[in-house]
Amino acid sequence: MKKIRLYTPGPCAVPEEVLLEMARPFEHHRTPWFKDFMKQCQRKLKEVLQTKNEVLIITGSGTAAAEGAIVGCNPPGSKMLTIEGGKFGQRWGEIAEQFGIDVIRHEVEWGSAVAPQVVADYLKKDPKITAVMLTHSETSTATLCDLEAIGKITQAAGRLLLVDAITSAGCVPLKPDEWGVDVVVTGAQKALMIPPGLGFVSLSERAWQVVANNKSQHAYYLNLIKAYQKGLENDTPFTPAHVLIRGLSKALDILLEDGMEAVWKRIAAMAAATRAAGEAINLVVFSKRPSDSVTAFRAPEGVKVSDIRDGLQSRYGIQSAGGQDHLKGKIFRIGHMGYVDEMDTVLVIAALEQVLHKLGHKFELGAGVTAAQKILAERI
Amino acid sequence: MKKIRLYTPGPCAVPEEVLLEMARPFEHHRTPWFKDFMKQCQRKLKEVLQTKNEVLIITGSGTAAAEGAIVGCNPPGSKMLTIEGGKFGQRWGEIAEQFGIDVIRHEVEWGSAVAPQVVADYLKKDPKITAVMLTHSETSTATLCDLEAIGKITQAAGRLLLVDAITSAGCVPLKPDEWGVDVVVTGAQKALMIPPGLGFVSLSERAWQVVANNKSQHAYYLNLIKAYQKGLENDTPFTPAHVLIRGLSKALDILLEDGMEAVWKRIAAMAAATRAAGEAINLVVFSKRPSDSVTAFRAPEGVKVSDIRDGLQSRYGIQSAGGQDHLKGKIFRIGHMGYVDEMDTVLVIAALEQVLHKLGHKFELGAGVTAAQKILAERI
Repeated sequence: MKKIRLYTPGPCAVPEEVLLEMARPFEHHRTPWFKDFMKQCQRKLKEVLQTKNEVLIITGSGTAAAEGAIVGCNPPGSKMLTIEGGKFGQRWGEIAEQFGIDVIRHEVEWGSAVAPQVVADYLKKDPKITAVMLTHSETSTATLCDLEAIGKITQAAGRLLLVDAITSAGCVPLKPDEWGVDVVVTGAQKALMIPPGLGFVSLSERAWQVVANNKSQHAYYLNLIKAYQKGLENDTPFTPAHVLIRGLSKALDILLEDGMEAVWKRIAAMAAATRAAGEAINLVVFSKRPSDSVTAFRAPEGVKVSDIRDGLQSRYGIQSAGGQDHLKGKIFRIGHMGYVDEMDTVLVIAALEQVLHKLGHKFELGAGVTAAQKILAERI
Repeated sequence: MKKIRLYTPGPCAVPEEVLLEMARPFEHHRTPWFKDFMKQCQRKLKEVLQTKNEVLIITGSGTAAAEGAIVGCNPPGSKMLTIEGGKFGQRWGEIAEQFGIDVIRHEVEWGSAVAPQVVADYLKKDPKITAVMLTHSETSTATLCDLEAIGKITQAAGRLLLVDAITSAGCVPLKPDEWGVDVVVTGAQKALMIPPGLGFVSLSERAWQVVANNKSQHAYYLNLIKAYQKGLENDTPFTPAHVLIRGLSKALDILLEDGMEAVWKRIAAMAAATRAAGEAINLVVFSKRPSDSVTAFRAPEGVKVSDIRDGLQSRYGIQSAGGQDHLKGKIFRIGHMGYVDEMDTVLVIAALEQVLHKLGHKFELGAGVTAAQKILAERI
């Protein structure tokens, strides 16, 4: 008996119902049926992403969606500030450089979140900055920034705010319209519970004006102008991964049946339970401002990350994530996104106890699951 | 009882086995298992695409793959000739322009194929041309060019040849290595029999040298440098649509079980049967040099394309394609790619007879299927 249990912070576990939906006979995507289907899907996407803005569906990874947003929102003469506190934050700065965009790349210590005041200072100091891009939940360090506070700052300063919400949208509170977020970029294979292959971009009216007037952008497949215009007709400019959209629609139904407030609450409880369990078994949370979508623990003294992850995988089929770049071998990460519920969280904690115990790490067996159980009982 | 029957020239019908494969439990894509899986997949892809060159897998449509190839193969100072005889040929010229590439866009009458000598003349006249891009099988007009002859010309002239093989690879004879094709671009949802969402690019050693040295390209997600390097490690630079790759692997098995020569022969027979059937029921083939992957017929005098397509759809669940741009309302198209065999071909001809008969088109009922039956019996 071999089970595959995905606790990676993307791709995440997908409900069986979604996989089966994707196996059903399908229509061509240029039919009245599909247009109507896309319309329903759009309505549900807006509700899950908590925005009134049109959500563009792009066939590609989250990076593809982010590239479309970065290139589209930075016409010649613009200047962008990127806040980089991890692997993904860095990527947005790299994309800007690759496309010759004038960019200030602000580095944040990995595992820390930017202080909103830092953004305010940049904008005050440099009136040429037209846009700010940051990562809401930095997957590589499992860290969440105070997006609401930053949104107030960029909005007051009249600058565009682009947010990588790839591991936040659909799992932690995110209210783009209320918070002054102009562009939300996200992906399929995280909280939206479908296999990878779709990226999403929502644009505020202000962001759309910038994109629409940016005729000279170096973008064709990822050019948001056509995608936006076609999106209004419930269509896509290029052949979409429509089978994934079929799965998406079903996954959105599952999320909306619970309601986003309930989803956020459940995931927050699971993350809190995991952190409490970690503390109880002498593990240290890596992030100074942990995200609820994924938890990163430091490997305990004398125990190798690879041994922990291999043990989880070989004994229980649990797939976790390690650290990236200089965090490789230092941390391991457990996701709370996707088709993972409270009891799956207890399961992974129990497995972690078994593996750490065998590896000689000192703690009281059962302390982790007990701590988690208490938090879950209190919070849900 | 309602059946969906896809005869569109992409997305094409997908084997049930492929859809079910995609519904199976899946692993994360950064695991030894997945790397080994990708290695097997690469081997099969090379065999189906008849090349020794590495085939890069890109999550996106065929257009995404083509953009990566065009931008990568045209470093500053290069000049590209595009041959445009339809909707897709035009697209490659548009991409070049969007990225500021020096491009000569040669127009060919829609429904005709370029004379190879025309390419030779351009290359002789303009030594600055470094690359030629053309569409092997132009889906919008159902026309095939003489790629083998053109490949000899570009190779003799020492220029790169980029080929959109989106509706040719896997269904009509294409031998890139023998014919001097440097870059083959194709997509998933055509002859490769999987749902849309993946694009493919193979690069000859000569093309790879150009791409590898093109550090200033305006490309990140679609930048082929990282994709190539990661490809050699059986990996991808960004999260791939790995469920589609699972389906791909199964679809490639199905193709290779028959063998490519047999697949080409079968599809050629189906296309010939369809053309003969059309002639027998007083339909005119649109293309002067028809491709075997898709057949375009002119709408007969006094009959509307929309009525033909609506009849096929409403009575038999058959999805066909119309004409694009100035061919809208003038032609309709029936695909021979994907999970469609000889008897499916007879079926669509029979359905076309029923629909045309009801619409008042004059011909002898049964003449189409009879003509098709004869061709199939002769050729297979």
